[in-house]
Amino acid sequence: MNAGNVYDFSVEPQDVDFTLRATITSMCNCVLNTAGVDAQRNGFGTDTLLKNDRSWVLSRMALEFDILPEQYTPFKIRTWINDGGRLLSVRNFLLTDDGGNVFGRVTSQWCMIDMVRRAPLDLSSVVELHRSYVSDEPAPCDRPRKVLTVNPQHTTEHRIVYSDIDFNRHVNTMRYIDMMLDILPIEMLAEHRPLRLDVHFIRESRYGHTLTVGYEQNGDVSLFEIKSDDGEAVCRAAIEWR
Amino acid sequence: MNAGNVYDFSVEPQDVDFTLRATITSMCNCVLNTAGVDAQRNGFGTDTLLKNDRSWVLSRMALEFDILPEQYTPFKIRTWINDGGRLLSVRNFLLTDDGGNVFGRVTSQWCMIDMVRRAPLDLSSVVELHRSYVSDEPAPCDRPRKVLTVNPQHTTEHRIVYSDIDFNRHVNTMRYIDMMLDILPIEMLAEHRPLRLDVHFIRESRYGHTLTVGYEQNGDVSLFEIKSDDGEAVCRAAIEWR
Repeated sequence: MNAGNVYDFSVEPQDVDFTLRATITSMCNCVLNTAGVDAQRNGFGTDTLLKNDRSWVLSRMALEFDILPEQYTPFKIRTWINDGGRLLSVRNFLLTDDGGNVFGRVTSQWCMIDMVRRAPLDLSSVVELHRSYVSDEPAPCDRPRKVLTVNPQHTTEHRIVYSDIDFNRHVNTMRYIDMMLDILPIEMLAEHRPLRLDVHFIRESRYGHTLTVGYEQNGDVSLFEIKSDDGEAVCRAAIEWR
Repeated sequence: MNAGNVYDFSVEPQDVDFTLRATITSMCNCVLNTAGVDAQRNGFGTDTLLKNDRSWVLSRMALEFDILPEQYTPFKIRTWINDGGRLLSVRNFLLTDDGGNVFGRVTSQWCMIDMVRRAPLDLSSVVELHRSYVSDEPAPCDRPRKVLTVNPQHTTEHRIVYSDIDFNRHVNTMRYIDMMLDILPIEMLAEHRPLRLDVHFIRESRYGHTLTVGYEQNGDVSLFEIKSDDGEAVCRAAIEWR
């Protein structure tokens, strides 16, 4: 059993919103940075993979937050990997405060792609390195749920600009989450209810395209769908307010 | 003479653009974080000031970058303060690589405001703490230049959303810089010419307002003006490509 590695964080002033608590986006950012740093440390980071024209792509993610910590609060993220079969790597995260109390649980599914063919790879190509880090410890929350249909009550348009894109000229994961939170009534973000966020990344979207962000409120669930110029969904998500 | 304090940074994957070099915005972010952390360490940070309903407000800033460092490059920022008279604190920054070579120079002007009256304060109210850190070492580059008139050849509109605003519900400084870079032809950002950026923050803009971003290219100088709903300028800037 591999207990994974632990990384230290703190809620910095640039991570909080007007309630002086960490934004959902900043917490996602810490989680994804942990994934990047931990993979790099174990020898299967994007920096190593890119030398063979390979890269990790985040497919689905589920995040549960009981609270969003206040500015200057220190916290820890422990991460470990589960076997996700031939094509998926499952990476889990547990977020704890200074007293060791868990306030966040995350599980994520990644595939490895061949950057030249833009196709998924069998993980056996890196299996030796990757397998030695696989743990029996289960994911700390239910695996990411599919969001099938969204019937938007509100939509906004967003033209993809320079500050939205990553090293690949694709829209950065964090920006999709920003676009979804930005369409919510701001009061909902100020309530700080415990929440679960499921995100499903379907296709890439590129610089210069225009995205349509759709939002449906269904009881205690906020549903989102981001579509590309051609009408195809690029990302769907749901926030369950608990 | 106070030689100031030195802080360590590294260009993280989330700081680079598609050229795998740090974005101008991410470098500004490191500079402003240094200002925040250094002021906090010296006892006149926003956390302390807010207890008396006071806060620092960035008025003008000039940044010179000879290069923008590549992903994973470690660098250092040294910061020190000059006396800027009764109403201004001048904070300077020198950015150096691991070999001690200077690649960035920044000088910035801050005023302290009374958050209740929304009016600037005489710095003598914190003068004892602040004065003990004032250095004779001059700023590492020319002080921020005024940008007087911009005759936009291109404009875009931007409605201010949740992800644009800070703890004060005002647009975050970094987002203004993003909006200006986003209107530039993307090829200009890929050229990585040495540059000087002068930014002048004129007024605050708030959640729900719509901004108009204007851009004029005048030889080797890119000029920007961001206006609010009411037609008043909230921010002007110039990038001199060297």
